[in-house]
Amino acid sequence: MDPLTVGQYDLVHNAFSFAIAGMGAATAFFFLSRSQVAPAYRTAITLTGLVTLIAMYHYLLIFGSWEASFLVSGGVVKASGVAFNDAYRYVDWLLTVPLLLVELILVMRLSRAETAARATKLGVLAALMVLLGYPGEISADASTRWLWWSLAMIPFLIIVYDLFIGLKASIDSQPPQVRGLVNSARWMTVISWCFYPVVFIFPMIGLTGGTALTAVQVGYTVSDIVAKAMFGVLIYMIASRKSETDLLSAGDLAAVR
Amino acid sequence: MDPLTVGQYDLVHNAFSFAIAGMGAATAFFFLSRSQVAPAYRTAITLTGLVTLIAMYHYLLIFGSWEASFLVSGGVVKASGVAFNDAYRYVDWLLTVPLLLVELILVMRLSRAETAARATKLGVLAALMVLLGYPGEISADASTRWLWWSLAMIPFLIIVYDLFIGLKASIDSQPPQVRGLVNSARWMTVISWCFYPVVFIFPMIGLTGGTALTAVQVGYTVSDIVAKAMFGVLIYMIASRKSETDLLSAGDLAAVR
Repeated sequence: MDPLTVGQYDLVHNAFSFAIAGMGAATAFFFLSRSQVAPAYRTAITLTGLVTLIAMYHYLLIFGSWEASFLVSGGVVKASGVAFNDAYRYVDWLLTVPLLLVELILVMRLSRAETAARATKLGVLAALMVLLGYPGEISADASTRWLWWSLAMIPFLIIVYDLFIGLKASIDSQPPQVRGLVNSARWMTVISWCFYPVVFIFPMIGLTGGTALTAVQVGYTVSDIVAKAMFGVLIYMIASRKSETDLLSAGDLAAVR
Repeated sequence: MDPLTVGQYDLVHNAFSFAIAGMGAATAFFFLSRSQVAPAYRTAITLTGLVTLIAMYHYLLIFGSWEASFLVSGGVVKASGVAFNDAYRYVDWLLTVPLLLVELILVMRLSRAETAARATKLGVLAALMVLLGYPGEISADASTRWLWWSLAMIPFLIIVYDLFIGLKASIDSQPPQVRGLVNSARWMTVISWCFYPVVFIFPMIGLTGGTALTAVQVGYTVSDIVAKAMFGVLIYMIASRKSETDLLSAGDLAAVR
């Protein structure tokens, strides 16, 4: 295991604790607030809360694994001999990444046929992307890592293309009050996701040691908070604003009470 | 680690336990009571509960770290060699201080544009204030501490100015029954917040040893309870009273039932 300074160890430790608190608070927010949106959008908010709940669970495990991997004493960090288990991230992504895309599709409230088709396509591609990344992540061999990275990039690029080109007509059909928010959600997905394949190649381009380990862990954590909790707040805002719009047009104020 | 008497060790230990109980009870109160205010104020009460939930989580970690840092035996307190991790407070503040300001803005029910503008401005300034304080807090060098303290005081003073001058017109637009309560919430924020920069400079003005450590920990804990749980009760009272006022003017008593 690479040597770390106490400052680096503490920074990663505190970033994981921040993720547990942030994901937990976000889950409570989504579960409590789902009753405040119209029934048509509640499933989207429920899934948003499931994503942060699953992430909180995995950050608890990652936090525990970090604690178990190092011994900190007298201002020095030593490897304990227990390997830090980063694979929890892949288990997390396999569950949460398809759900994140389904959340975005559901809050757009497309026709039933289009919802089913897009949710299935993006969900399957997302799962495939995570599964193809894993054999590379657990390999120390650079050419093996590049192979699986390249394979995982295929579904990644199809998803990005689909979010930008495929969803264009659907986004233009959204009420004008939420078009900007839906657009932000789409951009937030793409920008926060771009961090993951970049972090993946750090060890292949010569980055090693405690600084690289710290950068990777803090980077993944910040990306997860943006892609799951902050993205979820955007989904909630879209659902909330669309509920008002639907109500005004339906004249049905009772629905959100 | 500074030597502590058993009395000092127990006082801090009990203060942390008091904070866990107080924050936990406050969270249950806010989550259960949010259905008793009109829908327009429920997000403010949800955020109030999230603040105390996040604080309870961090006091559990701080309590555990305190326990791990000292060995108490035969009427003597000895350092265990494990450093007391006070940085959980900064992680906590980074999440809760922006939320506290947003809950005050939300309960005032300003126009959508003013809510978004004020919540963004105060939220960003609050996060900046906490981030600028952190490098000073973890430094033992007095001049480094003064530098970061001074930098953190810039957003602090802008927030205080904004609460007093910027929000004046908005407060005057509140219904007369709640104007006094909104004013109290504003004062409670400013007074409880002033404690933090004062505690920060204790080690820079010669306070050391167990007495200083005890004063800092008990002081931060009392401030947190005032600024989060008691402030939250004021927010709930404002939301509750405004719900009644809105209903009377709308003649719609069914909404909160």
